[in-house]
Amino acid sequence: MILGIDIGGTTSKLGLVRDGKVIARERISTTGHADDHAFADALARTAQGLIAAQTTATLRSVGIGAPNANQLTGIIEMAPNLPWKHDVPLARMMSDRLGVPATLGNDANAAALGEWRYGAGQGIDDLLVVTLGTGVGSGFIVNGRLVLGSAGNAGELGHTILIPGGRDCTCGRKGCLEAYVSIRGMIATYAELGGTEGATDVKTVAQRAHAGDAAAIECFKRTTEWLAIGLANAVCATGPKRIVLFGGIARNGELLMAPLRERFHATLLNIYKGRVDLTVSALEDDDAALLGAAALGTL
Amino acid sequence: MILGIDIGGTTSKLGLVRDGKVIARERISTTGHADDHAFADALARTAQGLIAAQTTATLRSVGIGAPNANQLTGIIEMAPNLPWKHDVPLARMMSDRLGVPATLGNDANAAALGEWRYGAGQGIDDLLVVTLGTGVGSGFIVNGRLVLGSAGNAGELGHTILIPGGRDCTCGRKGCLEAYVSIRGMIATYAELGGTEGATDVKTVAQRAHAGDAAAIECFKRTTEWLAIGLANAVCATGPKRIVLFGGIARNGELLMAPLRERFHATLLNIYKGRVDLTVSALEDDDAALLGAAALGTL
Repeated sequence: MILGIDIGGTTSKLGLVRDGKVIARERISTTGHADDHAFADALARTAQGLIAAQTTATLRSVGIGAPNANQLTGIIEMAPNLPWKHDVPLARMMSDRLGVPATLGNDANAAALGEWRYGAGQGIDDLLVVTLGTGVGSGFIVNGRLVLGSAGNAGELGHTILIPGGRDCTCGRKGCLEAYVSIRGMIATYAELGGTEGATDVKTVAQRAHAGDAAAIECFKRTTEWLAIGLANAVCATGPKRIVLFGGIARNGELLMAPLRERFHATLLNIYKGRVDLTVSALEDDDAALLGAAALGTL
Repeated sequence: MILGIDIGGTTSKLGLVRDGKVIARERISTTGHADDHAFADALARTAQGLIAAQTTATLRSVGIGAPNANQLTGIIEMAPNLPWKHDVPLARMMSDRLGVPATLGNDANAAALGEWRYGAGQGIDDLLVVTLGTGVGSGFIVNGRLVLGSAGNAGELGHTILIPGGRDCTCGRKGCLEAYVSIRGMIATYAELGGTEGATDVKTVAQRAHAGDAAAIECFKRTTEWLAIGLANAVCATGPKRIVLFGGIARNGELLMAPLRERFHATLLNIYKGRVDLTVSALEDDDAALLGAAALGTL
């Protein structure tokens, strides 16, 4: 049995995972703790409650997914969206408190491992998982191993430059893929296309597209085209056998995935055609982050 | 002692490599043979002559670098620039003739392995090697292992799309990095900028830049900017510790490398700054391809 912990900006989730299923879960607030040690204490207390209720299995390890987490060091590095404005060595802090090994990794890498161990990427040792949400994250698996990079920060597909000199990105540069195909990017595209009333989420844009709103339809069309290029470029790097898309945007099947598949295969370099497929995460929303975090614990 | 064979469009080179040095070399024509078997016979005869002259070492393996070579299958797949318009299983053909294991790989991957084993990438287990020539090739090394991809064709950085809808590329698509920063790309840029008399090689453009030709200077400036983006994007995939550039273009130090280093570090995503360096191949021209091919033989 593995404990998966998913650290979010407001809520942190804990789940016990056994045989690829979440068998018990709990959540606590990420905010409102005196400091990072008090937060780790609260996580450990909650975890011990979950563990004590399991009489037939013992805890083997802990996996923790968090934004700005460096897997090589086990440290959350000054995460802008978390309460602590300093480095937090959460892997060691949880390992000390729970008495088993703990592995910390960034949330996109956790998602990639989750899909590889438990989801749509099972058995695929050359895999790319792309998370489409507020930002765009990614995790590359090569030869059956997560690519961490020399400094533990590989897999930033969202910050590959798609349009040189293009839109401002939150990273301070211009034209990143994330500035176009994230939630924020899609809202910006819809506004640029003159969406008559501002939409603040992708669901609204999708509803309007279904209702025939030309700007909303065009917004999905352009998002599809941009994402196809970003994914085709990623294929040129590591030559994956499968790409799994994860996150709310990817669930807009007939608006996004059907045309995306067509555009992706049309955009691919010839030698990759027919050798890489594109699919959507098969994991349930509530479980995906926990399974991903737990997968870190299996490393 | 390893035999390295570098298959080119007109000439194929053979070299015996020992302790990271080419100790004997020979070359034969790639063209003018009755068929691929006759070519393999000629290679084997030449190799046996080289081997027979070495009295203190025996041949352990053969490494062969070739365009359009698939390392997973050992086959040269219908290479447009070679005489045989069908698949040539050259790894097996040479192994049969020389009685030792033979490994075939594409020339950019061979270059990457050569830099990793014998050149500017020694000891760097997360490495990217980019070859700048008629085309743009690349080889990614991750966790001390060459990335082949699920179908043996990873590492096509030259065919990542830099400018969506941009210049026609030889691959049939538009806007690839290779269409901008290869020899062909630089000549096209120079022509677009109104270079008064057409230049047919980069050396001429470089000479004109040195002489103060504004179009030639601007051509190098744009090439630098484009290549910086292409390399910064590649870093986002695998997070290498070092990038090694290889090929004639990279040797234009003050025109290309000095400004490129500045633009590359300026373009890098924040989290990679100071964590990846950019350097030029330290291998001698005549030896690089042979050492790269030989490095394939060490796998």
